[in-house]
Amino acid sequence: MKFYAIGGFKEVGKNMTAIEVNGEVVIFDMGVSMEHLIDLSARGLEYEKLDEQTLKSMNVLPNDTILSGKKVIAIVISHGHLDHVSAIPKLAKKYNCPILATPYTAEIIKRLLKDHNQDSQLKFLTTMQYGDTAELSKNFKIEYVNMTHSIPDSSLIAVYTSEGIVTVGYDYKLDNTPTLGDKPDYKRLKELGNEGVKLHISECVHIEDEQRTPSEKVARDMVYDAIDRAYLDSSAVFITSFASHIARIRSIVEANKGRRQIIVLGRSMNNYISAAKELGLIDTSKFQLYGMSRDVKSALENVKKNPEQYLVLSTGNQGEPNSVLSRIARKEQKFAFRKEDQVIFSSMVIPTPVNKANRYVIERNLKEQGVRILKDVHVSGHAMREDHRDLLRILNPDTVIPMHAETERLASFASLCEEEGFTIGDTVHIMTDGRYINIK
Amino acid sequence: MKFYAIGGFKEVGKNMTAIEVNGEVVIFDMGVSMEHLIDLSARGLEYEKLDEQTLKSMNVLPNDTILSGKKVIAIVISHGHLDHVSAIPKLAKKYNCPILATPYTAEIIKRLLKDHNQDSQLKFLTTMQYGDTAELSKNFKIEYVNMTHSIPDSSLIAVYTSEGIVTVGYDYKLDNTPTLGDKPDYKRLKELGNEGVKLHISECVHIEDEQRTPSEKVARDMVYDAIDRAYLDSSAVFITSFASHIARIRSIVEANKGRRQIIVLGRSMNNYISAAKELGLIDTSKFQLYGMSRDVKSALENVKKNPEQYLVLSTGNQGEPNSVLSRIARKEQKFAFRKEDQVIFSSMVIPTPVNKANRYVIERNLKEQGVRILKDVHVSGHAMREDHRDLLRILNPDTVIPMHAETERLASFASLCEEEGFTIGDTVHIMTDGRYINIK
Amino acid sequence: MKFYAIGGFKEVGKNMTAIEVNGEVVIFDMGVSMEHLIDLSARGLEYEKLDEQTLKSMNVLPNDTILSGKKVIAIVISHGHLDHVSAIPKLAKKYNCPILATPYTAEIIKRLLKDHNQDSQLKFLTTMQYGDTAELSKNFKIEYVNMTHSIPDSSLIAVYTSEGIVTVGYDYKLDNTPTLGDKPDYKRLKELGNEGVKLHISECVHIEDEQRTPSEKVARDMVYDAIDRAYLDSSAVFITSFASHIARIRSIVEANKGRRQIIVLGRSMNNYISAAKELGLIDTSKFQLYGMSRDVKSALENVKKNPEQYLVLSTGNQGEPNSVLSRIARKEQKFAFRKEDQVIFSSMVIPTPVNKANRYVIERNLKEQGVRILKDVHVSGHAMREDHRDLLRILNPDTVIPMHAETERLASFASLCEEEGFTIGDTVHIMTDGRYINIK
Amino acid sequence: MKFYAIGGFKEVGKNMTAIEVNGEVVIFDMGVSMEHLIDLSARGLEYEKLDEQTLKSMNVLPNDTILSGKKVIAIVISHGHLDHVSAIPKLAKKYNCPILATPYTAEIIKRLLKDHNQDSQLKFLTTMQYGDTAELSKNFKIEYVNMTHSIPDSSLIAVYTSEGIVTVGYDYKLDNTPTLGDKPDYKRLKELGNEGVKLHISECVHIEDEQRTPSEKVARDMVYDAIDRAYLDSSAVFITSFASHIARIRSIVEANKGRRQIIVLGRSMNNYISAAKELGLIDTSKFQLYGMSRDVKSALENVKKNPEQYLVLSTGNQGEPNSVLSRIARKEQKFAFRKEDQVIFSSMVIPTPVNKANRYVIERNLKEQGVRILKDVHVSGHAMREDHRDLLRILNPDTVIPMHAETERLASFASLCEEEGFTIGDTVHIMTDGRYINIK
Repeated sequence: MKFYAIGGFKEVGKNMTAIEVNGEVVIFDMGVSMEHLIDLSARGLEYEKLDEQTLKSMNVLPNDTILSGKKVIAIVISHGHLDHVSAIPKLAKKYNCPILATPYTAEIIKRLLKDHNQDSQLKFLTTMQYGDTAELSKNFKIEYVNMTHSIPDSSLIAVYTSEGIVTVGYDYKLDNTPTLGDKPDYKRLKELGNEGVKLHISECVHIEDEQRTPSEKVARDMVYDAIDRAYLDSSAVFITSFASHIARIRSIVEANKGRRQIIVLGRSMNNYISAAKELGLIDTSKFQLYGMSRDVKSALENVKKNPEQYLVLSTGNQGEPNSVLSRIARKEQKFAFRKEDQVIFSSMVIPTPVNKANRYVIERNLKEQGVRILKDVHVSGHAMREDHRDLLRILNPDTVIPMHAETERLASFASLCEEEGFTIGDTVHIMTDGRYINIK
Repeated sequence: MKFYAIGGFKEVGKNMTAIEVNGEVVIFDMGVSMEHLIDLSARGLEYEKLDEQTLKSMNVLPNDTILSGKKVIAIVISHGHLDHVSAIPKLAKKYNCPILATPYTAEIIKRLLKDHNQDSQLKFLTTMQYGDTAELSKNFKIEYVNMTHSIPDSSLIAVYTSEGIVTVGYDYKLDNTPTLGDKPDYKRLKELGNEGVKLHISECVHIEDEQRTPSEKVARDMVYDAIDRAYLDSSAVFITSFASHIARIRSIVEANKGRRQIIVLGRSMNNYISAAKELGLIDTSKFQLYGMSRDVKSALENVKKNPEQYLVLSTGNQGEPNSVLSRIARKEQKFAFRKEDQVIFSSMVIPTPVNKANRYVIERNLKEQGVRILKDVHVSGHAMREDHRDLLRILNPDTVIPMHAETERLASFASLCEEEGFTIGDTVHIMTDGRYINIK
Repeated sequence: MKFYAIGGFKEVGKNMTAIEVNGEVVIFDMGVSMEHLIDLSARGLEYEKLDEQTLKSMNVLPNDTILSGKKVIAIVISHGHLDHVSAIPKLAKKYNCPILATPYTAEIIKRLLKDHNQDSQLKFLTTMQYGDTAELSKNFKIEYVNMTHSIPDSSLIAVYTSEGIVTVGYDYKLDNTPTLGDKPDYKRLKELGNEGVKLHISECVHIEDEQRTPSEKVARDMVYDAIDRAYLDSSAVFITSFASHIARIRSIVEANKGRRQIIVLGRSMNNYISAAKELGLIDTSKFQLYGMSRDVKSALENVKKNPEQYLVLSTGNQGEPNSVLSRIARKEQKFAFRKEDQVIFSSMVIPTPVNKANRYVIERNLKEQGVRILKDVHVSGHAMREDHRDLLRILNPDTVIPMHAETERLASFASLCEEEGFTIGDTVHIMTDGRYINIK
Repeated sequence: MKFYAIGGFKEVGKNMTAIEVNGEVVIFDMGVSMEHLIDLSARGLEYEKLDEQTLKSMNVLPNDTILSGKKVIAIVISHGHLDHVSAIPKLAKKYNCPILATPYTAEIIKRLLKDHNQDSQLKFLTTMQYGDTAELSKNFKIEYVNMTHSIPDSSLIAVYTSEGIVTVGYDYKLDNTPTLGDKPDYKRLKELGNEGVKLHISECVHIEDEQRTPSEKVARDMVYDAIDRAYLDSSAVFITSFASHIARIRSIVEANKGRRQIIVLGRSMNNYISAAKELGLIDTSKFQLYGMSRDVKSALENVKKNPEQYLVLSTGNQGEPNSVLSRIARKEQKFAFRKEDQVIFSSMVIPTPVNKANRYVIERNLKEQGVRILKDVHVSGHAMREDHRDLLRILNPDTVIPMHAETERLASFASLCEEEGFTIGDTVHIMTDGRYINIK
């Protein structure tokens, strides 16, 4: 068995790996580097219009040349975040093979392909439910196992190969009281551990936090409290969060308890919520949803008339310069904040310097207008060190490969593995983009 | 009206302030500097045996000489933490006046006085319930208002003086879903705001966290989850927390749900829990409680026989070198951890260099024995920046004085006040130990 | 005497203060907020073209309305950095009074006024040498005292008023071995201390560093070492620093020791170096200087041919998106770095989130092209805590007012003053923008 | 060739590695974990009196059981710091083989052996000058190459084996203007690179600082400036530094320029300076040196009489609780600081939690007595990231193994190697204590 480290082994994001058994290759995830993607828009460039080569040279896309000439039989996607799916319209075509994904993930990929005018690729999209297995060949059988994360339909992927089981643990937390969907399928995870896992691949975004990640239930409690207190004042209340975090958006809507009119604004809000509505994951009857900038504009004009009657959920949680909230903060909209209006950030700052600067600028702009800000009404969707230890103990793999981080954090995961009895260089491997390794 | 900044104006702790109206003085809190107290024991000295002068020269006690010759008519205590009450046995005697405190606080003071063989002072102790008022003189009337914090019976103190109302906001959070006791008495707080507060005094320990402090309910959820997961393994499970945090201790006991035998170990655990039992704040029938080192020793010998049958709650959450947990970690007890035993820290490290070093040492010792550690199963008991803003808006005082921190943090509170319309040097004052100010 | 805190009392930058004695006012410095100025260009706006009101509402300019109607008799400038002089073309006109400055500072102001087509204002500009005094009125006599900082001709300003001496300590370090100009005039400083200073105003940018700032001589040693080592490889060597830091630029030129051809690129490099040349502060015969983008372009085309023959000194030390270096790093110039070319940052990142992001982006871009980066070949131009203590002890003022920082850092300076015997609220004042105070 | 990672591969310190060629083994360095050694004294235990097994179980000593039964032909020591030599008296005996060391290192080892009553081992000590080679066997020839660090006679060790050259880069900086001894022997280093280095082993203590380490010359400039300014006041002046840092101690003595009487106090000061004197590395005629606590006491009594006539150099730069300076700070000596006396720390805090706590306590104690503190009059003795890159480019090894740090820092070094063309897991290896690897 060969393991290919294609992207996400010297950076957070740009996730793409592959496994080869008997000359057949299966790819796992195809994401972009969010940081470099954000750079594009800062330079006035459009991702949709740039070609594969340019995007690779700009480090937006993973470099998959290591797979050229290989027989790729499937692309298996873990969940719908952009750093896991956005490279599909750029890279998948040449592989001419099925793309497996859970329903919500599939819905997102569908929209991505349409945005790139690749309707012809839609036929490759295969929707998988938790527990479904796909017999790809005599070498590969894929099973989707229920996991929890900050987007619906996240999964751990169990790969039954003719040389043993591989588990792909892209982006998860162990949330025993999720607010949308079920808790992780511990029963299957334990069974996998008992059957014997040859190789476990794991994200390690929060490996350095020596804790367990609190449940999304905690975030819901915080949202409820934040909304209740915000409503004590007769001011405009804006809240922003990750557009794909449907569980959170539901909590925000529920927290309102019918007290105010809810307006949801922004292109990506519209996109992800529409996708969720399609699958019955969210009841959109309780709010109005506007994605087009013209509609956003007129909705804000209404808010302006009676700000205290609205709860506005908008894009902008990372201070993205083009988001609805950033535009208002820069006074580029008809609606302008008054002193003592409120903005709740139901998110954390994803800690890159550019995000930090963007958030700093939006917060400073808001504060200079007298707006009250409430931050970090949030818990993470990523496992922390002790969750990773839990999963390692459950799956008990022969070999581990950490991913989705720069070298130092991969090493931190490796040192957790050392604590659990693995050996760096032997049973846990620190890889780097563009390399492969033979798994004994 | 004169305000005396006696202790806690260039350090966290050593809290002591006083207000003078028409020649009469009321003192608020009498605490030690925990950091310097810890130093004593590192040097092998005993607080009980040292005299007032020595302790002042060592910066353990607030220096109250500014009050000498004044007519002190009462000492009013906000809550029972050591940095608010421990100076009483050293300083109170000379004032020869009533000491007001809520029941749990009074219970703690009683024990302190007895430890110092000052039974004669007990007669001064006056127990106050929330809502009770004490008419001290024609200049002073004291009311205890229900507040939430990390120890039972915490209070905001409303001081009706002949020159206007003073509110003393020593150590609080705004917890709307506490697990022990009621949420803050917002009704009374609003009434005070409406009556007109002349001066508000506020702690500012967490002023730099631009959030609201999550509810203790969140900590309870985290404790439940931590215990549930810990019990998945047949290992010893130890948990440690603040001995005076009765709400947390109750959550720990509840989280056990009868699955294991609970043993509570350590002198201060025994002390604070006994005090709580006295007042019916905790049901001790569900666990065994051992304070004496001989009893601790024999209890641990039992645990040694069948570790997987016990949940041990012990002292040592800050890595205190003399705590039960530190001693075990140093292998100075009969009971020794085996690989994969578990220790849960239901606390944060109070961020002083000495605490950090102590915690580092205990954690390192535990890890070197293969013990699994889970940290930060905790939420704070102190208000954060946005909670302080809430209270400022409710009380709407004429003047504010922050306390319980070094100058920079007092200034951070002052800058919050600036945001809320106050003026540094005019309506918000940054004070320092040993100074007073006239309040217009 | 009245002290007006106009700008720089809740932010770093936007420096402007004033002193009133007997109805006459003298203004000290007139700077912009660099952070907000940078914001303008990010939004595609031009400072020169925006009016006073707009710039005030955007927090670029200090708000000097507190002085309206006052009799301002002079504007006294300490040194030529933009956060101390750039507001002159926007605000000075209405005061219709002399502008005092040392030669290099005057040269910079002259250029600023010309850029704003305010040649008519040039007549107000009065050049002062160290030791010169200007008798402004019977209330005010101004003397410029030699101080060291990171730009030529920096000064401490001694203000003899009819109510006592004020010393204005805007932006200084105590450098006993400067590489350009003389060390601080300790003799005069001591004399001032002996005469009796009523009020000392001090910057406090680096108050939190509990050290002394090393001499610029140390930076020169580091530059020499960096250049020597860089030349070991036959690669392009670029170096970037602050354009106004003439001492540093001289060190860079000297470090070359004739080994390579030196090319200096960028509009602000051209601007500040030309100004320095005018005053004989730098010998420009040893390098070629290009400010216009067309010239930069053709110079870089030459470098491209034989990169190993050049040392290129360019703008871009903060990663400014429009700087020469950033453009090359984004591959927007004909010259492109090859693997193993070298870039030396002879500067620190001025620690704002936007600068950090800009520097992150330029460094990442350079690294992705294989460029070797050397950072922090630099020492600061600002006094640290122990330098401030030194100056306080020399001047021994009655009252101190810290400036040029947000509230918390002002407080940190105030706490230094407390250590030195001052009292917050009495002899040291934490002010905020738009307020004044009467000095006893 | 086999490489054994014995100690220093999951911690800073406890350094010990070994190389095996054709059944013969050479050991490099034998150090303790300073952190655990400090722990011993905190518990009242004495290193000298504890046996090998106990010390291994306490993680003070490296665990060398992996070498048991091997034919060890020499122990080769790089320099004299305790984390590189202190395990010799505990571990070397059983190997019964020569111990190679440069003169100052040998002098330190001699004293260590005597302290442990192992005079019989002295015969194994072989002194090597820079450039000397030792033909150990037909498989191993050792050469000492001049390197710079913070102790005299530091070296890079070139190991000529029958399978190729190994370079051992334990603890170095690339100082081109050292104040004691010569700069690194670049000529030999380049020759080694040209001959072809099979394996390079490198410390990585400061790998995360993306700079070059400034020269010791910079520290000397800082010491001179600090002393000059300190003498401006008629107060006691104390200075503390690392006792083994002879270059620094010389700078301190020189900086005095005969102005005050210099007294040097403390056991380890006496120890290291006497060793240096023995070899003519320091002229002790300019100061008095007292190591015994009785002598220290009486010397301090003299200082007490005329503090302004003395410069006292003492132990205590890390705040070690038993150091001379800590004792004075705790008022346990006859000499007591007066307000405005001065203490200069010519060192950095070695960043472990225990050191930080110790330094915090000593600084707080000093400040509470009104002592003026000057910190960080220092530059590091360890190479930073860009120095390591320089050496990698000079030596151009086939394979690299970083050491002397925990896993994450080893990984950071590995990622530098990746930048330089190496591949993790193939040509750069992240090892862990107790493992070995075959070098191709």
